[in-house]
Amino acid sequence: MEPSEFRRHGHALVDWIAEYLSGTEKYPVLPRVSPGDVRNALPSSAPERGESFDAIFADVERVLVPALTHWNHPGFMAYFASSASAPGVLAEFLAAALNQQAMLWRTSPASTELEEVALGWLRDLMGLPEAFEGVIYDTASISSLHALAAAREASVPGVRNEGLAGRGDLPGLCVYCSEHAHSSIDKAVILLGLGHGALRHVPADDRFRMRVDALREAIAKDRAANLIPVAVVATAGTTSTTSVDPIRDIADVCRREGIWLHVDAAYAGVTAIMPEHRIHFDGWEDADSIVVNPHKWLFTPMDLSAFYCRRMDVVRQAFSLVPEYLRTAEGSRGVRNLMDTGIQLGRRFRSLKLWMVLRHFGADGVRAVLAEHIRLAHLFSTWVDADSEFERLAPVPFSVVCFRARPRAMVNASAAELDAFNEQLLDAVNASGEVFLSHTRLNGVVALRVAIGHLNTAERHVARAWQLLREHTDQLLSSRC
Amino acid sequence: MEPSEFRRHGHALVDWIAEYLSGTEKYPVLPRVSPGDVRNALPSSAPERGESFDAIFADVERVLVPALTHWNHPGFMAYFASSASAPGVLAEFLAAALNQQAMLWRTSPASTELEEVALGWLRDLMGLPEAFEGVIYDTASISSLHALAAAREASVPGVRNEGLAGRGDLPGLCVYCSEHAHSSIDKAVILLGLGHGALRHVPADDRFRMRVDALREAIAKDRAANLIPVAVVATAGTTSTTSVDPIRDIADVCRREGIWLHVDAAYAGVTAIMPEHRIHFDGWEDADSIVVNPHKWLFTPMDLSAFYCRRMDVVRQAFSLVPEYLRTAEGSRGVRNLMDTGIQLGRRFRSLKLWMVLRHFGADGVRAVLAEHIRLAHLFSTWVDADSEFERLAPVPFSVVCFRARPRAMVNASAAELDAFNEQLLDAVNASGEVFLSHTRLNGVVALRVAIGHLNTAERHVARAWQLLREHTDQLLSSRC
Repeated sequence: MEPSEFRRHGHALVDWIAEYLSGTEKYPVLPRVSPGDVRNALPSSAPERGESFDAIFADVERVLVPALTHWNHPGFMAYFASSASAPGVLAEFLAAALNQQAMLWRTSPASTELEEVALGWLRDLMGLPEAFEGVIYDTASISSLHALAAAREASVPGVRNEGLAGRGDLPGLCVYCSEHAHSSIDKAVILLGLGHGALRHVPADDRFRMRVDALREAIAKDRAANLIPVAVVATAGTTSTTSVDPIRDIADVCRREGIWLHVDAAYAGVTAIMPEHRIHFDGWEDADSIVVNPHKWLFTPMDLSAFYCRRMDVVRQAFSLVPEYLRTAEGSRGVRNLMDTGIQLGRRFRSLKLWMVLRHFGADGVRAVLAEHIRLAHLFSTWVDADSEFERLAPVPFSVVCFRARPRAMVNASAAELDAFNEQLLDAVNASGEVFLSHTRLNGVVALRVAIGHLNTAERHVARAWQLLREHTDQLLSSRC
Repeated sequence: MEPSEFRRHGHALVDWIAEYLSGTEKYPVLPRVSPGDVRNALPSSAPERGESFDAIFADVERVLVPALTHWNHPGFMAYFASSASAPGVLAEFLAAALNQQAMLWRTSPASTELEEVALGWLRDLMGLPEAFEGVIYDTASISSLHALAAAREASVPGVRNEGLAGRGDLPGLCVYCSEHAHSSIDKAVILLGLGHGALRHVPADDRFRMRVDALREAIAKDRAANLIPVAVVATAGTTSTTSVDPIRDIADVCRREGIWLHVDAAYAGVTAIMPEHRIHFDGWEDADSIVVNPHKWLFTPMDLSAFYCRRMDVVRQAFSLVPEYLRTAEGSRGVRNLMDTGIQLGRRFRSLKLWMVLRHFGADGVRAVLAEHIRLAHLFSTWVDADSEFERLAPVPFSVVCFRARPRAMVNASAAELDAFNEQLLDAVNASGEVFLSHTRLNGVVALRVAIGHLNTAERHVARAWQLLREHTDQLLSSRC
């Protein structure tokens, strides 16, 4: 593409994106397409001859846009939101053009060192000590995988070279997390060859926090069976309810027992930027590793997961491997090469967007947005609490409210009928296209989730979500009569 | 950021990038900075108040640009090149703004189905049968990790739940690759808990191809020792020399032995788009899995690795795990959810750039660029062969030439002296800023590598590389007198 053509298409795209970012509300959050619609609207083979960018972009608008789930819609309140903020989007544009591959310092000094700078800024903002060295991975799944790989490395002598199989001397290995921990922990344990059965889902208390007495018991039981406890994963902000495990007490257990402590703070960790919220994270400074995801609640587009580790030497011990074709003079002089702290050799320039976002918003700006989201969640929570047709199902430590409809007219309904009613309610509300809520299951019952976290979500969007929930509850009830 | 501001900064960035993409030659390929320069030029903490985009971008130009290694420079001939083509860069810009997270079909029908479409196009272009289902990961490291995880799943009953440790019944597990396989295979074997010692680096022949007789022997020896062969990794385009293992013969061994065959074609696989080059890949259609990296030689910016698998059900068996909060009606109706085929839950909209690149260039356009790169490598190779001061150290099946200086004046030099001379030559040539070459070690001696692969690399750049090599050889020799 000639520079003049790039300019023309680039400028048109800037205008399109400016319109998109500020106008997502004109789209339904959830697209109205059926499986196969996109596939069937496109040719089944690549063109033999090149096509114009205009023709390609026409298909973006014709086929892809109607099939987007609008993560940038202010009514996106499902799962955890992710915001493509303007500085984050511009940073990704620039990063794609610069196309850095920071496997070695030499292959991108800028990306290697900016990663250190940006992660240092974030670490300091969250009040974590300098002993935590940081590295950026793509997702929390990969961050937690590295945490557990390092824990395995630290507790199983010779595992790097000898592995786990066929070693008669080696007992089984165990990992502990709460029953509300994220599925990425399960997948990491499976991948590492520990076996899913080696993951102890420790029961939670009535506020969905890991029970430390049950953790102690589980460890004692495993030790008595001659198994080796390898790691405990404490979650600060579980996926269903954003509950926070008692990190301080868990850290005490881990220290006494000599077990690696990993804190999964992928969603909630950024709130430690607000001193008044740091209480939730009390004790995480004693963890061996922590994951925090700026692509969740820190306005950077997918993907960017920040992994902090007090013992990065163990990560290096597990993964550093320098073939001849990647040896450099700098490497032998002690310069940090990012390929040494990870399974992925290829690494794109992710730090750029984190650095630009932190500078664009400033610490104060970040705090203001997070505080507003938390305020909105608490506001929504008061509406639920004040309405006798609804009940709240979990505390609200951050910006997620779990609740369900429990209409008086259904006072004699079975548990299954109430679940079905709430599922219908969720589908009806989501079908409006104005909001997108998700669900979970708490103590066996279907719970609806309102998760505030998009940069553009304001009080009117939350109020509209509540209005839709109320209206559709009434409609569903009247259709039952 | 207001839409008007986004437009202003976006338009300025488009112009900057247009200038950058067409003008990388004005920069030295390798930056002239020292470790710490970037870190020391930036504040040690995040700003309390937000800053203007102009201020941020001024630091990009002041601090970051001088510290970039220019992967987009046509003189980048190190490792394997990666091209940020214009359609690829525009696609990444759009993908960042759309911010899709395709863990579930529901969370992005567009991204889920476009991935299937784009990977189908690429598969068909490479002449692979439809039985290969595709999925996009970030890097070949992750693709090969999934291949070996699936191989482990297929050969160790109960491994998902029971793992590998503490199982007295379970013998050791082995993986086979050539001594020239990529380090990502080593890392995957370590991560999976097989142990680095379980990886057999099968000796290569004099053309750096895995010796099938040695493979057969290694398998027989391991079986005799009651070990379980889990997988063979054949490489089509090794990192040092781009040699191609004899895939057809290896596939025969794997079929007879019931062993998973993974083909690492990360760099060279795309050349199968040219029917006249498909001979290199003869037999890969019988593999269980294949990795091809469009972010290497198919003009898409970092990161995009295409993983093809005949037995994706085994990948799903290893990794599918659907917690309540991710259950959807579509999932239960058999719609494909991409989170089921991978360790990473979060997935950005990578297929967009592959689809746009294939449409922009067309199959014909891709073939023309690849053919030209191969022509340039062969041309360079003839210069080396014709010069009595140089020797070629490996065949040139694709676009990489391995060679070294072996001046007549050094006919009595020791092996170490020749290595040192070539290292000095490499440093001198790279210090020019006009080209960036890398090195490897072949049969114990230092080899220089010229790897052609950037979209903008033309004959004059390759000629200049050769001229620099010649000139610096003469200079180094005269300074020795």
